[in-house]
Formats: sequence, C-alpha cells, structure tokens
Amino acid sequence: MTDTAPLWWVREDLRYVGTDLHLGGVNLAHAARGSGTPAYFYSGPRVLANLRRLQGALDATGLRGRIRYAMKANRFGPLLTLMKTSGLCGIDACSPNELRHAVRCGFSPGEVSYTATSVSPADLDVLARNPETWINCDSLSTIRRLGAVSPGRSIGLRVNPALGVGYGENQLLRYAGERTSKFGIYREHFDEALALAAQVGLKVEGIHFHVGCGYLNAQLPAWREVLHACRWFLDRVPNPRVVNLGGGLGVPHVATDRALDLETWAGVIRETFGGTGVEIWVEPGDFVVKDAGVLVLQLNTVERKRNTLFYGVDGGFNLAMEPVFYKLPCEPVPARLRGEAATAWSPDALHPVTLAGNINEALDLWAENVPLPEMAEGDLLVLLNAGGYAAAMSSDHCMRAQATEHLLL
Amino acid sequence: MTDTAPLWWVREDLRYVGTDLHLGGVNLAHAARGSGTPAYFYSGPRVLANLRRLQGALDATGLRGRIRYAMKANRFGPLLTLMKTSGLCGIDACSPNELRHAVRCGFSPGEVSYTATSVSPADLDVLARNPETWINCDSLSTIRRLGAVSPGRSIGLRVNPALGVGYGENQLLRYAGERTSKFGIYREHFDEALALAAQVGLKVEGIHFHVGCGYLNAQLPAWREVLHACRWFLDRVPNPRVVNLGGGLGVPHVATDRALDLETWAGVIRETFGGTGVEIWVEPGDFVVKDAGVLVLQLNTVERKRNTLFYGVDGGFNLAMEPVFYKLPCEPVPARLRGEAATAWSPDALHPVTLAGNINEALDLWAENVPLPEMAEGDLLVLLNAGGYAAAMSSDHCMRAQATEHLLL
Repeated sequence: MTDTAPLWWVREDLRYVGTDLHLGGVNLAHAARGSGTPAYFYSGPRVLANLRRLQGALDATGLRGRIRYAMKANRFGPLLTLMKTSGLCGIDACSPNELRHAVRCGFSPGEVSYTATSVSPADLDVLARNPETWINCDSLSTIRRLGAVSPGRSIGLRVNPALGVGYGENQLLRYAGERTSKFGIYREHFDEALALAAQVGLKVEGIHFHVGCGYLNAQLPAWREVLHACRWFLDRVPNPRVVNLGGGLGVPHVATDRALDLETWAGVIRETFGGTGVEIWVEPGDFVVKDAGVLVLQLNTVERKRNTLFYGVDGGFNLAMEPVFYKLPCEPVPARLRGEAATAWSPDALHPVTLAGNINEALDLWAENVPLPEMAEGDLLVLLNAGGYAAAMSSDHCMRAQATEHLLL
Repeated sequence: MTDTAPLWWVREDLRYVGTDLHLGGVNLAHAARGSGTPAYFYSGPRVLANLRRLQGALDATGLRGRIRYAMKANRFGPLLTLMKTSGLCGIDACSPNELRHAVRCGFSPGEVSYTATSVSPADLDVLARNPETWINCDSLSTIRRLGAVSPGRSIGLRVNPALGVGYGENQLLRYAGERTSKFGIYREHFDEALALAAQVGLKVEGIHFHVGCGYLNAQLPAWREVLHACRWFLDRVPNPRVVNLGGGLGVPHVATDRALDLETWAGVIRETFGGTGVEIWVEPGDFVVKDAGVLVLQLNTVERKRNTLFYGVDGGFNLAMEPVFYKLPCEPVPARLRGEAATAWSPDALHPVTLAGNINEALDLWAENVPLPEMAEGDLLVLLNAGGYAAAMSSDHCMRAQATEHLLL
C-alpha cells in the first residue's frame, strides 16, 4: 500500500488504492482507457455529499435554507439531472440559455432563480415567458424594464454592500468593495430602487448579494461584516421573505488551505438573520462541484530543456482556465504511481516538474516547478479540482476542445 | 461631417461617415440591424491589404518570402477561403483539427505548415496521413516519435534563442527569454536534435522560431537581437532551405501605439539572412486579421452607480478574452454618434464610462473610465481590434456564446 500521508487532498473517496488513483471507487486509469483523453470525470456521490453538508449547515442556522446551485460552474446535463432527482437543490441561472438548459435537464422554471447583469431586452423576453422563475434585479434599469414586460412579479434586489471577500488576496475574485462594481444596487440608490419597483408593479420580497469567490475560514470575519452591512438593506424591505447570500464558498486549492468551517459559517448567518423569519438561499457553484471533478490527460512529452524538466500533456489551459487566468491551481497527480513513488510518496521520489499544455501560448503551463514523481510518455496525469469552471468555460482555442465529460455513479 | 480628428484608429476604411461608423464601406449599424448582436464583422479587403503590405515587405528583403497565416487567430471559414483564393498566403496550423479545417476551406495539405507543442501520438497519426504538410518540431521527443511514424520527411526545427519580445512590457506574451520555456530547442540541445533527426530519418531543412506576440517598433532592436541569435542555429543546419520567423507582429491597441514599421522590419531580415539563399517564412495572426474585425454589441443598461457611469452591453469577456486576460484592449466606440458628439469628437462631448459585459464575473469589464460620448439604452457599441483571438478563442461561459460572424466583401 502506497504511503500517501503527505498528500493534502486525499480523502475517503479520492485516494490511491495500491498504485492507482481512485475517485468515488473508480480507477481513473481504467476509466480513461475507455474514454480516451482529455476527459473530465465527475463523482456524483461527492456532489450530493457536498450538497448535504451544506444543507446541514443551513439547517443549523434555525432558518429555512435552500440551495440554488450556480450552474455556470458545471452544466453537464447528467450531473444537473442527478441533482434534480436528489431533491437537494434548485438552480441559479445567469442567462436565458442556462434557464432553458436547467429546464431541459428536469428542473421546473419555479425551481430556477435568475441572477444576471447587463440584462438585455432579449433576456427579458425569455424571463417574461417564465413567470415562476425568481429574478434578482441588480440595477434600476433592469427593474424598470422588467416591470414593463412582466408586471406583478415578485423579485429580489441584488444589493452591493461595498465590502468584498475572495480567495486569499486574489483581486480578480472580488465582486464588491471600495471600487464601484457593476453588480448590485448600492445604499445610495436603494430607496430609489424600492420606489421604482413599486411604481412599475414589482413586489420586492428579498435581497440578494454575492460579494466574492472562493472564500475560506480566513475570510469569515470579513464575510461577517458583509452580512451585517446587508442587514441594513433587509431592514428597508417592507415584508422580506428571502435573503440570498450568493455563492463564493471556497474549497482548498493548495496544501496550506483548510476546508471552510461550515459550523462557523452557519453561526454568522444565525447571528445576523436569526429571528427575522426570512428564508436563507445560497448559490454555491465551486463548493458543490469543484472537488468532485478531475481532468485526466496523457503525457506525450517528457523532456529536460536546460534547467527544467517538462511534462507535456494532451490538453491545455483552454480546458480549465482557472489555473492560468485566476491563479486557482489544479493540483496535478499521476493516475498511477510508478518507480519509487509506488512505495511511498517521499521527497526522494519527487522531482520538480513544469507541466505544459499543448496550446501554442507561453502561459499554457498547468504548474511550474511542482514536485511530481517519475512519469513516462504515455502515462496518465490527473488534475484535481477540475469539477468547476473547467469544462463549463472551456474554449475551442486552437481547435483543441475535444474533451469528454463523464458522470461517475 | 463629424470631426473625428482626435481618434487614433481612424483610417480610410474605418471611419465615421456622417454620424455612422463604417468598416470597409459598410454601415455597421445597418449591418447589425440585420445580424442582431453580438456580431463580429470582418473586412475581407482589409485582411487582403494587410497580407499585401506584409508580402511587399518580405519582397523588399531580397529573399523569397512566404506568409503562412496563423489560423488560430481567426478560423472563420469564409475568411480562410477568401485568403486561399487570393493566393496571398498559406496556413500555419497548430492542431490536427486546424489542419483539417484549413483543408476543408480549400487549402491543400502542402500549403499548410504545422507548428505545435506537446505533440501527442494522436496528433502524429494525423500528420503521418498528410506527408505534404511541413512540420516544425519543437522538442527531441517530437523528432523521435515523428521519425517513427513518418520517416523520410523534411522538417523544420523550432529553436529557442532564449531571447524574447512582446507587446510593451507584457510578460504574458513572451515566448522565449531567460526563463526556460516549453517552446523550441535550446542551443544546449541543438546538436543532439540534429543528430537525432538524422538517426530517425528526418531531413532538417530549416529553422523556426516564435519569440513573442504583439511587437511594435519599440521592440525591433530586441527583435534584431533575436534574429542574430537564431543565425547561430541556421549556421549549424547542413543545407538550410527555410527560416521561419514565426509571428508576433503587432498592431496598435491604444492611442500611443504606432503601426509597425515594415521597412525597418524587412531591413533587419535582410541584414541577418541576406545572402544565405534561404526562403523566409512568417506566421502572422493578429497582424493580418485583428484590425480588420470588430465586435458589435448593444447597450442595454445606462446607469450611474455611486461615482461611476456604467454602460452595460449584451456580450462579455467570453467573446473576446484579450482585454481582460492579456491586457490588450479593444477600443470601444459608438456605432452612431448622437448629441454633441455628432458634431465633433471634442472633450466636451465625452464622459468617463465603465463598459460592463453581461457575465457574472467582476472582471467582466471591457474598459474602465474611458471617455465616451453620450449613449442610450438600445444604442450599438463597436469594439475595435476584435478580428484576432476573439471569436476563435471564445467560450460558452454562462452559455453566452451566441455571437455570429460575418465576412464583409
């Protein structure tokens, strides 16, 4: 049995069994032999477990809580249908096509909420045809135009507390803060928004905010400030029914990250909104799917260039843009351990490697100078944390989009 | 007639006629009325003019010069076929599907060169079936494996001179330099590469290098150093026939940029390779297509939030990733001038605006605090320099990929 104690990401359903990496009991090397590469594999049971953990935390707030999964993180049809049949969540959509896709996968329009920005007349046409869908309006312009095409509707107002949180110090993932953002309605305009909604015949029944991505324990104090600031908005809504906390709950990306403490998280919600009688909605994306998915690639090139050992693989950054563009790494690990590493994941068995994709761009590196065991051309490499914002935002850059998605049950 | 003298990007085929912006004689507001938005428009005549200017510069070197258009910049089928029928260029492909697509659009496999990295066995299968296609090998691993499946072939070696150039100080666009890159064969390994090629039955007939993207006049001295460094490689090839300079020729993105001086560029080539009798190949992408294309979007939201005036449009960064991820802006301009700006593009008619896309990400801003004239919800906005690396690397993030492409003739 390989001693993989030093690996931070190992868990009961993601670990080496003998020399082979298994996800949800499935040997990934075997699975990829059938699928070919590049291939994304998503563990259905892990997704459902993540939803259950989160619902448990919501239940602990003492308020009624609902999960609206943010499908932009991963819209693979079989996965959406699995979520629907589990009964564990609804959907948050951010475009007309997402709304339609959710319905195609089995959700009813009433189980879908819609939170978007720069809403066009064409977008509003689709929303008007789905009156059961809950809409969060993030500007006065949207309120005015939605009222014109779909009066009488209940809505939420997306507000901007001018405070933000994100993964570490990553500024790309801040959605609110001192700098004025395109999202949401600020305090300065909130009374006007409420009056406008009343004037155009929309019933404001809740508030919504989404203030950042990937927050973990270190950000919980800042997140508490955000919630307190949003209480100001809630207290101005005449008969509030829903507080939607948005998404942004993070998952560990590197060895030094710790899983978000949901108990503390729930405590902050209870402290801020306990006793108000509102329903708490939450729109997680990554938190539900990211650590349930992996991307399997094949090594085709093992070559030392000057001072650097390169492993070249058959997929590039276009298949998962977060490592390159958002500084959110996908940990690379071998699908099968060979050589010394097959016995123990010890420092002696590791070499610094730069992992290069197959796109003709200098930035197309999955990782630089990461410790990896010996691998050979033809071996399979697994990128962890590829369940969210990977396939869903992939591009056909260089016509290299030929990756397949697979649900593991 | 609108006085638009202060606009840096105006040219004979891209300018306001009365109040309306025209590209290649086509009124973009009229064209977009038919197409809907978001829509990319590409001027065929501008693309051909760019190819002709470049061929003229190659001719001025006194060496035989050939253009291999890097289709990853823009692979819109009608545009590729236009290029083919013009006889002005061949194609450089970087994946099997690009090679196939070029052939589908009318190019013969012999008119296509292939320059890729992390080449897989599946990639090599396709190359073996196209023996007329010229391949530039960028690693010893590729040489070894190509020789095994396609012996007897003539190839180029992609070399890495360990010097790079790029747009301004943009590190994302450096392809070679002090840091060891995944691309090309370094001096330290070149003799071994030549010996390996001979051993596996491949004839090395040229060298290839590509050292950066978007270079302009300020980078020409550094580019001269690159060429001199590459001469070292050429002199070690027994009977060289081709020197491929790669691409990377830039176009102006902001008011302070000046167009690349092709005469100086050609002089550097003549100075370095004159008298060697080699053919000069060049693989421009952006230089051919970028300034020939625009992306037309519709404003749906005009709203001041706190201190910032936002114009919200019906397309986001997923339709053109360079502004957000590569710091290469697409200049935003109105399709039709109204108000004061209809008379003169004077500072009095301009207001600082932040232009926001419709993707639920904080980074989805086309431009921040840019001076724009008065516009209203429903107006059309044009993003310039959207002819390269826009549609071709777009993604269906948030299922917002519904843009159409149009060739203007």
